[in-house]
Amino acid sequence: MKENKSATHGGNLYAAIRQKGGSFAEILDFSANINPLGLGENVRQALHTSLESIIHYPDAQAHALKQAVSQHYDVQEDMITMGNGAVELMYILCHILKPKRVLVTAPTFSEYESAAKASGAEIEYLYLHPEKNFVIDIQEMITQLATVDIVFICNPNNPTGALLSHTQIAEVLRVAEQCNTYVVVDESFLDFLPNDQLNTCRRLMTVYPNLVILHSLTKFYAIPGLRLGFSLAGAELTQLLHQGKDPWNVNTLAQSAGVAALQDHAYQSESKKFLEKVKIDLYESLRSIPELHPYLPSVNFILINIKKTGLTSTELAQAMASHHILVRDCSNYPGLSAEYIRVAVKCPEQNSILVTTLKKVIGDKK
Amino acid sequence: MKENKSATHGGNLYAAIRQKGGSFAEILDFSANINPLGLGENVRQALHTSLESIIHYPDAQAHALKQAVSQHYDVQEDMITMGNGAVELMYILCHILKPKRVLVTAPTFSEYESAAKASGAEIEYLYLHPEKNFVIDIQEMITQLATVDIVFICNPNNPTGALLSHTQIAEVLRVAEQCNTYVVVDESFLDFLPNDQLNTCRRLMTVYPNLVILHSLTKFYAIPGLRLGFSLAGAELTQLLHQGKDPWNVNTLAQSAGVAALQDHAYQSESKKFLEKVKIDLYESLRSIPELHPYLPSVNFILINIKKTGLTSTELAQAMASHHILVRDCSNYPGLSAEYIRVAVKCPEQNSILVTTLKKVIGDKK
Repeated sequence: MKENKSATHGGNLYAAIRQKGGSFAEILDFSANINPLGLGENVRQALHTSLESIIHYPDAQAHALKQAVSQHYDVQEDMITMGNGAVELMYILCHILKPKRVLVTAPTFSEYESAAKASGAEIEYLYLHPEKNFVIDIQEMITQLATVDIVFICNPNNPTGALLSHTQIAEVLRVAEQCNTYVVVDESFLDFLPNDQLNTCRRLMTVYPNLVILHSLTKFYAIPGLRLGFSLAGAELTQLLHQGKDPWNVNTLAQSAGVAALQDHAYQSESKKFLEKVKIDLYESLRSIPELHPYLPSVNFILINIKKTGLTSTELAQAMASHHILVRDCSNYPGLSAEYIRVAVKCPEQNSILVTTLKKVIGDKK
Repeated sequence: MKENKSATHGGNLYAAIRQKGGSFAEILDFSANINPLGLGENVRQALHTSLESIIHYPDAQAHALKQAVSQHYDVQEDMITMGNGAVELMYILCHILKPKRVLVTAPTFSEYESAAKASGAEIEYLYLHPEKNFVIDIQEMITQLATVDIVFICNPNNPTGALLSHTQIAEVLRVAEQCNTYVVVDESFLDFLPNDQLNTCRRLMTVYPNLVILHSLTKFYAIPGLRLGFSLAGAELTQLLHQGKDPWNVNTLAQSAGVAALQDHAYQSESKKFLEKVKIDLYESLRSIPELHPYLPSVNFILINIKKTGLTSTELAQAMASHHILVRDCSNYPGLSAEYIRVAVKCPEQNSILVTTLKKVIGDKK
């Protein structure tokens, strides 16, 4: 039963190994958008140091971690709810707000829809258009606000990479406030930008009571297996989120790792600098393959139209998997089709293998 | 805001250290009911081995872990939902079932009430009586079933230790089925029994569709900081539980630790044997203090009436804390009062320190 649902995501290495054999070390996973620099040394050290502490309950107040988040992102502590991953908080938010109708863009990260449906909501789609590079049309979104209780905005959007400014999102927030609609902005990939000041809505937290920000810490700090994320919301909603969750939801190791990660400024700047160059190199390499149409990346993943290869996304993904490379088959995204795949940006040598193998697989089809 | 809620639990070492100073090593925590043998060597090894795997998403199917649970507890895999601790599953269960009224015993573990209230339910109490050793009166419980949607039964009950047989719970299940009432049996401490066959309701899973079993793996395997638990429910409800939660809710390290723990039969039998003797030794030592009335323990914790000390539970807990010993002040349990504390059963040397310090604190009062 679960195999179906989670098969809709990238990064399902365990299922891939069960299906095809092999081991982690033999697989190049371009299907999950994780910082290719991997575990920071400070984080690894924090994990080793706190390993023996797991015989005690985690700090239910996540005291040190909330302080670190507050300091790093310059936000008030009473707005912070720490999550066992940002996705946990999507579910709790929907369980608590019990929305009747929820607006999501098509395509976008599918867990917004899953969380909304789990709480009984109906889904409305705002379709995005390839000819506009999948950028959200703010005016079009605004016309749909009156009929929904929550709108989810993924910024930058996964899997397209299209980025909005906080000024554009503020337009949505203004109208949404009049409609009593919550605007949930998922900023999980903003850490990858050299500077997020033009894009983050954090500065709007004190202006719009209907704004909720979600933020995963697992992608940028390469700890998806540990689970860690947070939400920012008004103090009242934050209290409801705390009441609606297990008080010990964030495990001891994730709390230690989170503090170490947020204080590791060297890892942060190195990652941003590294990604900034490598993503453009990979984009250019992909663009040089005539059968591929990659979309300009904003962060660490690239959406690619593969129509001219003559392969469906599922066929291409399967062919790549036979070379031990996982890419994200995008055919199950509402608003996309079998014409699209998504790849993560990894280290140059790995990206070269991706490009070479894509060329081979496309050539084999001819 | 969180400091209040979680202050109602034992095991809050982080808050204790923030308030009183000191370090983990200096504090003897009798307020959390954790296996005193600590981390098993196999579990520690599994954690070290899988530490580098946290750069990948956890297995959303929890495939190996579900197999291990299925095998160890002899239950069908399609009944299992793995949780980020059993408490996470209480919240998800209530969010999904949206009960209007929920029955809990007074006293019992407070998260049933918190989870039910978080989903909007009203609470009904079945008061337990000290003169009956706090044993649940099954016939009395049955009379309250018609007006509630869920009844939570903690077996053995935390903090009293009172134990029911599966035959007694089956009586509740039969009537509850006619009332369309779910019976949630929390068996989180049953692993500590030498043999749980007279008490576990697992064998009733295929008989009663209204039965849900919760089971924490953090107490017996001493991994509360990692978070791990599971529920057993009918296939349909299990599917709803999966849909109502983050697919990656159980982190990679908890999954590895869980598999290693469930396969470590030496740790299991050693723990049961150890606890069986030590709990009675501690009970006898406590009973020899004239001012204390301990209740006979079934597993690894002991409820104590301290009325004759002339101290309130809060005063006694504070006095013990000044000696770096944490006990559970039970004054905030509905159905108990400032006459009660709870202590965990730890290793003999630690238990001796507890007893000696209790004597000193009680003597100081005189």
